[in-house]
Amino acid sequence: MERPLAERAEARPFHVVTPLLESWALSQAAGTTVFLKCENVQPAGSFKIRGIGHFCQEAAKKGCSHLVCSSGGNAGIAAAYCARKLGLPATIVLPEGTSQPVVRRLQGEGAEVQLAGKVWDEANLRAQELAKRDGWVNVPPFDHPLICVAKCLGAKTAAAGALACARELRVLSEVVEDREAVDAVQRFLDDERMLVEPACGAALAAVYSGLLGRLQAEGRLSPTLASVVVIVCGGNNIDSRELQALKAQLGWR
Amino acid sequence: MERPLAERAEARPFHVVTPLLESWALSQAAGTTVFLKCENVQPAGSFKIRGIGHFCQEAAKKGCSHLVCSSGGNAGIAAAYCARKLGLPATIVLPEGTSQPVVRRLQGEGAEVQLAGKVWDEANLRAQELAKRDGWVNVPPFDHPLICVAKCLGAKTAAAGALACARELRVLSEVVEDREAVDAVQRFLDDERMLVEPACGAALAAVYSGLLGRLQAEGRLSPTLASVVVIVCGGNNIDSRELQALKAQLGWR
Repeated sequence: MERPLAERAEARPFHVVTPLLESWALSQAAGTTVFLKCENVQPAGSFKIRGIGHFCQEAAKKGCSHLVCSSGGNAGIAAAYCARKLGLPATIVLPEGTSQPVVRRLQGEGAEVQLAGKVWDEANLRAQELAKRDGWVNVPPFDHPLICVAKCLGAKTAAAGALACARELRVLSEVVEDREAVDAVQRFLDDERMLVEPACGAALAAVYSGLLGRLQAEGRLSPTLASVVVIVCGGNNIDSRELQALKAQLGWR
Repeated sequence: MERPLAERAEARPFHVVTPLLESWALSQAAGTTVFLKCENVQPAGSFKIRGIGHFCQEAAKKGCSHLVCSSGGNAGIAAAYCARKLGLPATIVLPEGTSQPVVRRLQGEGAEVQLAGKVWDEANLRAQELAKRDGWVNVPPFDHPLICVAKCLGAKTAAAGALACARELRVLSEVVEDREAVDAVQRFLDDERMLVEPACGAALAAVYSGLLGRLQAEGRLSPTLASVVVIVCGGNNIDSRELQALKAQLGWR
């Protein structure tokens, strides 16, 4: 017999302790020891399982009977994964143009997929509408105190948790070019044998493109860094074909 | 001041607890739940760090002053990594034809590289010779009670530990074709975003090629497998160029 929901929700977190690996290749590139926090090997393929796993467990404890999420990306996959592990039904609402592989991936996790609207904002409205039903809970893909800090490249406002961190801690916010991010994805694949999304490649590009050295030369970063940790946040939306397409788009030979 | 060697050797193991991830794509292929034991995210890139890390720590406790190893592959990288962490010098002896990237990788770990002989057997003789020096210890790349079970595709005899396991447990020893192993490497890269050596792809090929299903149909494996664990043993000797070369060699379009 299945364990009751409250018991399943009290179980250990869905995320795992990921390895912190010293990278020889990135250390060479940075001129100091670089460690990789490998969030790409979290269940459901990205760091998103941390906040969303916690949110879903809390929702289940409070009697949630159905999870809803309006992301077809890593947040949606994480929500569908958590729902399956909790034994709860899940509905993922996506814009009408969503690709078939994404739909199949989510259905593979046992989620119901509904297509609504042309863009994420519209799908999100539909998700919020569904979440008004009794026992249904909306899993916000990035901005919620329990999910706290997460990124969404298409979001129009910063997550409140991220903003608070930026105010409290010394944060250097730097921009890398698309080409540098995709270059970093390719180099990381060859150096560390892991394939990540360009959004994750952006953090790696800070090392590969020499950004750290430039910040040191400008006096904005200490000239003697004992070590650097790069969070390899991961992401499911990449494969070798997609990487080739990105390279072609950027005029790569 | 540096901690004394005995203290460094008493520290926690060099290997880490790697994630055990449920794979949606491989579960689809197998028709049952497949878990991946991700040894590819061990320090030094493969499962080899387990046995070799333990061996090197034991050697250090017994007063070893210099480590020697005759592998340019994953065992040699693991030995060089352990030596650096223990603060011990290491000499890696390799056949003369060894590629420059392998030499640089090992030198990057702080190891001295010596080239000796045409094939591994000859380099190994030289390593055994060096290990006669006072305080020097040879790290056998695969066959030693402390290292226990490991594979070496070029070895002429099975490791004693592997043989003992094969006698004690029920083992189905199956062969997969090179093409199936390389096909599995490509599919695994696209499905799970990890790039592994074909030797690791061979285990994945047991799922992707339908071998499990054939064993079930033949009555050699239970028709109702609750779940399957595939050990993703990893390995450093692969990058996208090497994968393309392997595919070209096998007549892939």
